[in-house]
Amino acid sequence: MYLYSNIIGTFVFNEHFKLREKILFSKEESLRHLKLIEEGKILDSERRFLKKFKNIENLRETKDNKKILRADKELRYYKDKFYEKNIYITKHQIKASIQDDVLIIQAVSAYDELTKIINILVKRIREWYCYYLPEISESIEDNETFIRVILGKSKNELVKESKISFSMGADLKDKDKEALFTLVKEINSLIIIRNTHEKYIEEIMQRACPNMTAITGALIAGKLISIAGSLRNLVMFPASTIQLLGAEKALFRHMRNKRSLPPKYGVLSQHPLIQKAKKKHHGKIARLLADKISIAVKIDYFKGKYRGDELNKEIQGKINELK
Amino acid sequence: MYLYSNIIGTFVFNEHFKLREKILFSKEESLRHLKLIEEGKILDSERRFLKKFKNIENLRETKDNKKILRADKELRYYKDKFYEKNIYITKHQIKASIQDDVLIIQAVSAYDELTKIINILVKRIREWYCYYLPEISESIEDNETFIRVILGKSKNELVKESKISFSMGADLKDKDKEALFTLVKEINSLIIIRNTHEKYIEEIMQRACPNMTAITGALIAGKLISIAGSLRNLVMFPASTIQLLGAEKALFRHMRNKRSLPPKYGVLSQHPLIQKAKKKHHGKIARLLADKISIAVKIDYFKGKYRGDELNKEIQGKINELK
Repeated sequence: MYLYSNIIGTFVFNEHFKLREKILFSKEESLRHLKLIEEGKILDSERRFLKKFKNIENLRETKDNKKILRADKELRYYKDKFYEKNIYITKHQIKASIQDDVLIIQAVSAYDELTKIINILVKRIREWYCYYLPEISESIEDNETFIRVILGKSKNELVKESKISFSMGADLKDKDKEALFTLVKEINSLIIIRNTHEKYIEEIMQRACPNMTAITGALIAGKLISIAGSLRNLVMFPASTIQLLGAEKALFRHMRNKRSLPPKYGVLSQHPLIQKAKKKHHGKIARLLADKISIAVKIDYFKGKYRGDELNKEIQGKINELK
Repeated sequence: MYLYSNIIGTFVFNEHFKLREKILFSKEESLRHLKLIEEGKILDSERRFLKKFKNIENLRETKDNKKILRADKELRYYKDKFYEKNIYITKHQIKASIQDDVLIIQAVSAYDELTKIINILVKRIREWYCYYLPEISESIEDNETFIRVILGKSKNELVKESKISFSMGADLKDKDKEALFTLVKEINSLIIIRNTHEKYIEEIMQRACPNMTAITGALIAGKLISIAGSLRNLVMFPASTIQLLGAEKALFRHMRNKRSLPPKYGVLSQHPLIQKAKKKHHGKIARLLADKISIAVKIDYFKGKYRGDELNKEIQGKINELK
């Protein structure tokens, strides 16, 4: 006699591996069963079987053709059931597996893409707008300001403000102006959406990784998760890997060809502490930050208490020692 | 005595090239002057001078220091005036030089960029949306339809329609859904704007190049102008160059390395007549189209009469002969 359980139920086979008895699971029992297997526990249903043991002993194998046919049919039925339940459970597990970190990765990628897209379109508009009012584009370097100014003020106002007698730009027809300004308006709305996404990334990072976010800010933390592929991956990385995330190209260039220096940091180069520091301290600060991030991300992953302020104080203390 | 005119006025010099008499132009006169020069005509102001000739003859050079100083000052004054007027006229000419074709180039480039941007963002949304409702993305191949469907219907509606018992996607929090759907809405508005720009390109092409547009449609015609750099450049190209515009990469690859075949067409590959034709006729049709485009673009540039229908009939006639 063999006792065998899978996600569709518990089965008893005789010494020739013919099915002798079964108890099927409901969907909820299937999920419970899965959990028990993971925990290595004996199943209730198996216990129930042990109780029924006496009945099972009475079962005997027959050579009756009808019964064999029926057994075949039954087998097919179980195969279908097994398939169906398996799908159900897999889908359920996939659904349950979606954590904040996959949303973070999507939002951070969307943020990066929006930034690139806005730059492409502003470049186009600067060129296009030059045929309308060339005197403005060069005087406003910042892209967001440029879009805001040309959306907010008319050509006449801008000409007056810039103290030129008249503009070299053509007097476009209404249709032409309309085509130009629909694009300007669209860029403006893309900028607004990128800002919304930045806020969203901050919120979701506060929710999912408060400790790491305290050290790096939401965007850098999000990028680290995005490059690592998941929060779990990031937890597994040593601090030295975290320090270089985002500098893969420079690292491999260095490994191929020793003439180029090894990189000091990847995404961390955007960190305000590094940007404010003297160049000779950059490497040290990057190593320091990576150490603390490595601690913080573990606290976040295992849902520990908030220690962000404490970690930040430690970082600041060590930076003050540098001279 | 020498009579000399430039954009600031007409001047009379004596045999030692000292200024003896002048008439300054107003801004409007300067522009008129420019036009006359272009047409090779004698200026009104010069005629006026000829009348004054008798007075001028009475002028005599002196060696008076005061007068020389005054002359220097005067010279500087004219230099400034000359600079100022020159700038004015240059600006005016730049303003006047902006023709429809530069607007076409901008609009076509913006259209291409919008297409690329929409593809990037839809790719992102397909990945992101998969965590919310993965069953939909694969069943809808067309990007625009995909965006329309997920914007128009709720998750429950979509699950019901696709006849699945439940979705593998996570039940996102409101905040998470909001971040996802602001991007979906933005893509939708980018699609709308791209369509507006397509219509604008059609309008402006009808206005500027009715003959070429009749043969190729607005987008292909716009792209040809855009690659050529201007309508004028396109007019100068022989038909064989027009045939290959947009295939520069393939052409130079062929020229470097004779093993790769020469390209048959560039932008023209998108022409419906080529797309409908058998592969063995592609080269012939591209040559035929390029010939007729070369004629049409010349008619357009020199503002000739509309002959688009006639040209199209000729093309159709030759295509019908192919077998």
